[in-house]
Amino acid sequence: MSRELLFKSEHLQKTGSFKVRGALNAALQLDGPRGLVTLSSGNHAQGVAFSSRVLGVPCVVVMYEDASETKKAAVRSYGATVVDEGVTRLNGEERVRAIAAERGFHYIHAYDDAQVMAGQGTQALEFTEQTGAPEAVLVAVGGGGMISGIATVIKAVWPGTRVIGVEPAAADDTRRSLLAGRRIRLEAPPRTVADGVQTMMPGALTFPVVQKYVDEVLAVREESILEAQRLMMRHLKQVVEPTAGLTLAPLLEGAELPRRLGLFVCGGNWLP
Amino acid sequence: MSRELLFKSEHLQKTGSFKVRGALNAALQLDGPRGLVTLSSGNHAQGVAFSSRVLGVPCVVVMYEDASETKKAAVRSYGATVVDEGVTRLNGEERVRAIAAERGFHYIHAYDDAQVMAGQGTQALEFTEQTGAPEAVLVAVGGGGMISGIATVIKAVWPGTRVIGVEPAAADDTRRSLLAGRRIRLEAPPRTVADGVQTMMPGALTFPVVQKYVDEVLAVREESILEAQRLMMRHLKQVVEPTAGLTLAPLLEGAELPRRLGLFVCGGNWLP
Repeated sequence: MSRELLFKSEHLQKTGSFKVRGALNAALQLDGPRGLVTLSSGNHAQGVAFSSRVLGVPCVVVMYEDASETKKAAVRSYGATVVDEGVTRLNGEERVRAIAAERGFHYIHAYDDAQVMAGQGTQALEFTEQTGAPEAVLVAVGGGGMISGIATVIKAVWPGTRVIGVEPAAADDTRRSLLAGRRIRLEAPPRTVADGVQTMMPGALTFPVVQKYVDEVLAVREESILEAQRLMMRHLKQVVEPTAGLTLAPLLEGAELPRRLGLFVCGGNWLP
Repeated sequence: MSRELLFKSEHLQKTGSFKVRGALNAALQLDGPRGLVTLSSGNHAQGVAFSSRVLGVPCVVVMYEDASETKKAAVRSYGATVVDEGVTRLNGEERVRAIAAERGFHYIHAYDDAQVMAGQGTQALEFTEQTGAPEAVLVAVGGGGMISGIATVIKAVWPGTRVIGVEPAAADDTRRSLLAGRRIRLEAPPRTVADGVQTMMPGALTFPVVQKYVDEVLAVREESILEAQRLMMRHLKQVVEPTAGLTLAPLLEGAELPRRLGLFVCGGNWLP
């Protein structure tokens, strides 16, 4: 079957990913914050750091000690301070809350925040203004901030369009949670090339929205994610990160999908 | 100094490079050719193969035996036949002329052909329609087909704009030829990461045009070419080939250049 693929290109967004939408929306709701703080190893970190520069307030980003130096450098380039000494997946949340309390900074969570979710939805709003309704849209799923925002918009504007989430099979907490009807936590931090979706459990705020508006969540293999990323770079000539490959991967695995599809390309922060 | 850089993005062109412009223009001038044949290891090969499909005629591409399998596969994907057995830089031209004579196919030269040069110039024509005059344009120089077409257009439309060629220092046949006032042949096939400009001597047809319209030719180091390519991928999120890095490389080396620059991005056929 010949298909029509429509790519929403958030790798071309400020900071190289859609994450700045949610971070900036949350930051702009605040009434004179003393500063911003967040916990993120990736694109949300840059989104919050960029937002702090827009607001002209200080920013601290707590990053896991093993996060890449490139990502830490990117965060610093926006003027933010990186705190990473001894930060692990087990104590990161505690560290960020301590900094928020000590310094009186506002903590912008990476996904479990209504303003963040709404901000992520604006990419779908733009998409609906730029094309006619596809039969389905494909969206990478991590903590659920992106897909909850997108699904809310898509179902409001195009009720007939299916919203399909995609997770790595190695990090399928949302797929499992939907099947169980409650939030399931993975037993260990997932290992996947899709480093943008390494969450262990859907968010408390995002999950009900996912349950309400997302039609299904597919799980794909690591090789499919990387092959999808390669195909997008080879044929679209766009630099996209592995996590962006999630949207194309189900087609490579022969998933049953309609003909006209919208693919949300989440980011391009990847170095060849 | 803060600069304004305008990129003409031919990595997004059909076949992934500007080369299809010249090949197709040459092919469309022919009166019912029996077939097309060319000699090329790279983007011109795909341009001619694509053109043969547009015309609906057979195509043979002579490629050096050591050319990458990826490039050979790309040529075959357009329906062309690849001839590579025993083909070297010394006998390639002879082989392509023999095939042209035997089969009655038209040989479209990669650069030394007035229709090819004119076709390459169309990218500059589009560029002049899309923006105001920059103070200078930067163009990669191989055999001279691209820069002769571009320079002809630029000087006609924007006489005050400087046309600056860029070569790898390891393949500076055109820079040397301009200094000598006659075509200089390199002593050996050049080794450079910029595989799109590995010619040994400017063309007989292209060189007089280069002498007439090109203001200067700069030579840059291999590391600058690769660093420029990386910067373009990292910040523009576009997949460009090393040869495209030639346009940005002089800025990394601190070359004296004006503030507003046009950069002709020649192609994006590169696999991370």
